[in-house]
Amino acid sequence: MVQDWKTLVAGKRAETAKGLPQEWRLPSSILDTISESAAISVLDVPAKSGLLTAKELDITENHDAVDLIAKMAAGELSSFEVTQAFCKRAAIAHQVTNCLTEIFFDRALERAKELDEYLEKEGKPMGPLHGMPISLKDSFNLKGTYSTIGYVSFINRPAADFNSPLVDILLDNGAVLYVKTNLPQTLMTADSENNVFGRVLNPNKLNLTAGGSSGGEGALVGMRGSILGVGTDIGGSIRIPAFCCGTYGFKPSVDRIPFGGQTNPVLDGWTGIIPVAGPLARSPRDLRLFLETVIKSKPWDYDYGALAMPWHPVEEKKTLTIGVILECPTWPVQPPILRTLKTAADKLKQAGHNVILLEKFPSFAEATDLSWNFFDVDNSGTGFKHIADSGEPWVKSVKDMYTPPPEGRKDKSLGDLFDMNEKRIKFRKDWLKVFIDNKLDVIVAPGSHKTAVPHDTFKMPPYTVMWNLLAYPACIIPYLKADKTVDLPDPRISDYMPEAVDGAPCNIQVIARAEQDEELMAAVEVISKVLN
Amino acid sequence: MVQDWKTLVAGKRAETAKGLPQEWRLPSSILDTISESAAISVLDVPAKSGLLTAKELDITENHDAVDLIAKMAAGELSSFEVTQAFCKRAAIAHQVTNCLTEIFFDRALERAKELDEYLEKEGKPMGPLHGMPISLKDSFNLKGTYSTIGYVSFINRPAADFNSPLVDILLDNGAVLYVKTNLPQTLMTADSENNVFGRVLNPNKLNLTAGGSSGGEGALVGMRGSILGVGTDIGGSIRIPAFCCGTYGFKPSVDRIPFGGQTNPVLDGWTGIIPVAGPLARSPRDLRLFLETVIKSKPWDYDYGALAMPWHPVEEKKTLTIGVILECPTWPVQPPILRTLKTAADKLKQAGHNVILLEKFPSFAEATDLSWNFFDVDNSGTGFKHIADSGEPWVKSVKDMYTPPPEGRKDKSLGDLFDMNEKRIKFRKDWLKVFIDNKLDVIVAPGSHKTAVPHDTFKMPPYTVMWNLLAYPACIIPYLKADKTVDLPDPRISDYMPEAVDGAPCNIQVIARAEQDEELMAAVEVISKVLN
Repeated sequence: MVQDWKTLVAGKRAETAKGLPQEWRLPSSILDTISESAAISVLDVPAKSGLLTAKELDITENHDAVDLIAKMAAGELSSFEVTQAFCKRAAIAHQVTNCLTEIFFDRALERAKELDEYLEKEGKPMGPLHGMPISLKDSFNLKGTYSTIGYVSFINRPAADFNSPLVDILLDNGAVLYVKTNLPQTLMTADSENNVFGRVLNPNKLNLTAGGSSGGEGALVGMRGSILGVGTDIGGSIRIPAFCCGTYGFKPSVDRIPFGGQTNPVLDGWTGIIPVAGPLARSPRDLRLFLETVIKSKPWDYDYGALAMPWHPVEEKKTLTIGVILECPTWPVQPPILRTLKTAADKLKQAGHNVILLEKFPSFAEATDLSWNFFDVDNSGTGFKHIADSGEPWVKSVKDMYTPPPEGRKDKSLGDLFDMNEKRIKFRKDWLKVFIDNKLDVIVAPGSHKTAVPHDTFKMPPYTVMWNLLAYPACIIPYLKADKTVDLPDPRISDYMPEAVDGAPCNIQVIARAEQDEELMAAVEVISKVLN
Repeated sequence: MVQDWKTLVAGKRAETAKGLPQEWRLPSSILDTISESAAISVLDVPAKSGLLTAKELDITENHDAVDLIAKMAAGELSSFEVTQAFCKRAAIAHQVTNCLTEIFFDRALERAKELDEYLEKEGKPMGPLHGMPISLKDSFNLKGTYSTIGYVSFINRPAADFNSPLVDILLDNGAVLYVKTNLPQTLMTADSENNVFGRVLNPNKLNLTAGGSSGGEGALVGMRGSILGVGTDIGGSIRIPAFCCGTYGFKPSVDRIPFGGQTNPVLDGWTGIIPVAGPLARSPRDLRLFLETVIKSKPWDYDYGALAMPWHPVEEKKTLTIGVILECPTWPVQPPILRTLKTAADKLKQAGHNVILLEKFPSFAEATDLSWNFFDVDNSGTGFKHIADSGEPWVKSVKDMYTPPPEGRKDKSLGDLFDMNEKRIKFRKDWLKVFIDNKLDVIVAPGSHKTAVPHDTFKMPPYTVMWNLLAYPACIIPYLKADKTVDLPDPRISDYMPEAVDGAPCNIQVIARAEQDEELMAAVEVISKVLN
């Protein structure tokens, strides 16, 4: 007998809530201010909650993962105390942003204890991630936990009896896993809302979207409830939450970070644009830590789909040649982002880099259309079936972006796919020419034409999906904030609302050519140093 | 007005023949013995023809490319004399095996002169391929030459006005290009026959197939009319001619050697199993020269599709762990190949390597079926249309392997493709498990269940196509020869003909996991040293 979907959800939410210890619950004085229409920042809640000790605040606020791991390896901090600090802070982050799906603090603290014992006994850390809590998007599988990925119809699926390859790699390198994070229904919108877990709020301003699909990661890392988390990205799903919430977000090239063994929101065997896994973090060197550690672990020994391409050192360039894209005419960029880009370009020029303003490049509008055609190659509409299976309704952002099949949709054929492939090849050829003709190391472009915006208004992400279509790695560097006093209305852009987005994090996006993750990582470090 | 196809062919053949200097024509005493039913070897024709000087015989017979290039760089040999020697020998090879399509000796000799002048003027070679003649499969484009690829309907296409990226890389590294080589109609059979250029014969025994689709390369390199040639492989098209003709043939991982800019026999945008380009050669170190030179030239700067994966050094292993596959039950292996494999396995064991006989592995029969389903995803049958366009008939090997659409063929859908992708994923997972469970460095398997066989009887290549399906690199090592006195009939194999294939080259195939071209290359060197 099929249960009513609301009953299923109530059961699931009660289960999740059990993971939150009573003693870490926020007082109603704070909770009462939390709503998806509140124009408030909650970034200061951990500090003012009184739940974290001074040491826990220091651990979670004043260090990056590289730093904490060095301290744990040296015995200056225990994994237990670091894990407890992040568990507490994640618990707080969840209460104000609704960023978590699965909470397993007890298991994490148990693991942390084992790592502390390991260090004591062996006299050395288990690996480069020794003792470090790392958060995971809900789609990753970890033995004994659930991967509901926001579908009510998945609630009754059994807990995973295997680990995703990436999860095994993180554990083999000494990581502590403690939470899984929230995402949108279908994983194909930038608003992380679903009927199982509800909506993720942006910790910078609750009435703005946290982005998606790795929106739970964005909010959690934005709150420093995690400082190293794993998301996935097929059109911007790592980068959109990163820039909405003010964190770094690195979308690697295809298959360099093992993607396999996740719970699949779409059809198995699906082809077209290939999704990737990658880190959200608070410092460039934590991105590097993640990428180097995972790739040096030979993910191709864990995952049939991982590219057997070793991590290679790249020569440090003192002077980068940087192509700057300010905007594509079809998608004018809102004033806060345009100001951020121009400021960054000026600073990079002043620092001696060779900055070239790109004025001719392939169309972001056409690339976005083509990408959405690729996303729509499953004539059976598997994601929508997963929704229909439980009787749950479509959430607003899904309703706004997609049409329920079969209305308004013509089945695609193999011939259509081949035509799309040809169009994509044209983009790849044209972008290669842009890089070669200008001798570019990287491109700097907007992460989006907008900052985080009010819930359910984000819609299309032309400035991220271009790089998925090309399979180019791309990284968000958080930089500056929207300021209504200087970012005045632009008559070209009717939906820019200076008041609504005031204070939202801004960003630049740095892009390298396919498989040049090493080169991108090096450039991100150089550029971040100049900007910050 | 469309010309009669036979008239078109006659014109094209007359053009090709013009490339053969009168003074390099073989006497009728030799030519009269040449026919596709002659059970004779022509490997000794260059030596006994009297057309090559003693020095030219030495150049073409007693050195590999590494050796010749070192001598040219040191000024001990000129590129002109090396090029002339190979032009002559290629002219002879063509007259006895019909291996060439485009012949441009004059242009090659001009280029060789320029390289000699470059060396003199600059005091250093142009690059790692300085002065070396390299042959190309007909599908590669070189400015001013034709790429008919065996379709009569392509005869009237204009000469190329661009170079394929790989061609540019070879030239940038100092290579001399002098001929393009023959292939089968459709490129999808192992018998290199087409109505434009006719059939390639096997220099080891003219009445046997030279293999395909890079059959012209196989015969030319087999005759040492080239000692370094470039083929392409989607189901065995480098490896089948290599083992039929007794040469090395290395099928790299997908996109490591740039494949772009070739004349396409199939539909643009086609997807499924991805074809690759790679070398045929006479020594392992020439394979390495080719792979390292091309990949160190950063092919990703030339070709949008090339993987930006640098060549990396691999630790030399003294003891390899080698999984040996003797045969798949569905495709029993003929006695000469089985003996070769067993001999190789014994020698490797004696040399101290860890040899593991694999008895459980995924089905070669199912992989072959699946691969042919992938090859058949173009509902519009583009290759067959290219045939029909001129009115030329299907050649026998095409007729025997394919059914003219639409007879007997149901259109495939995107859903079918996704199902096929799922099946392929299963193969990839299962093979990864074979490698990991047995801690294998490489697998040694037959290149085929048979040696070169009488024309038009080769048909399916289960032992090569498996590795295309997986995108694993694989290399043929020529080893031993069929011997009717020891390779007695096998009651399981009715089509094994000891007399017919007596003397045919035998081989082993060495396979590594995807992208492990460096590891494969190193293993091929170790294994070749043990065997030879």
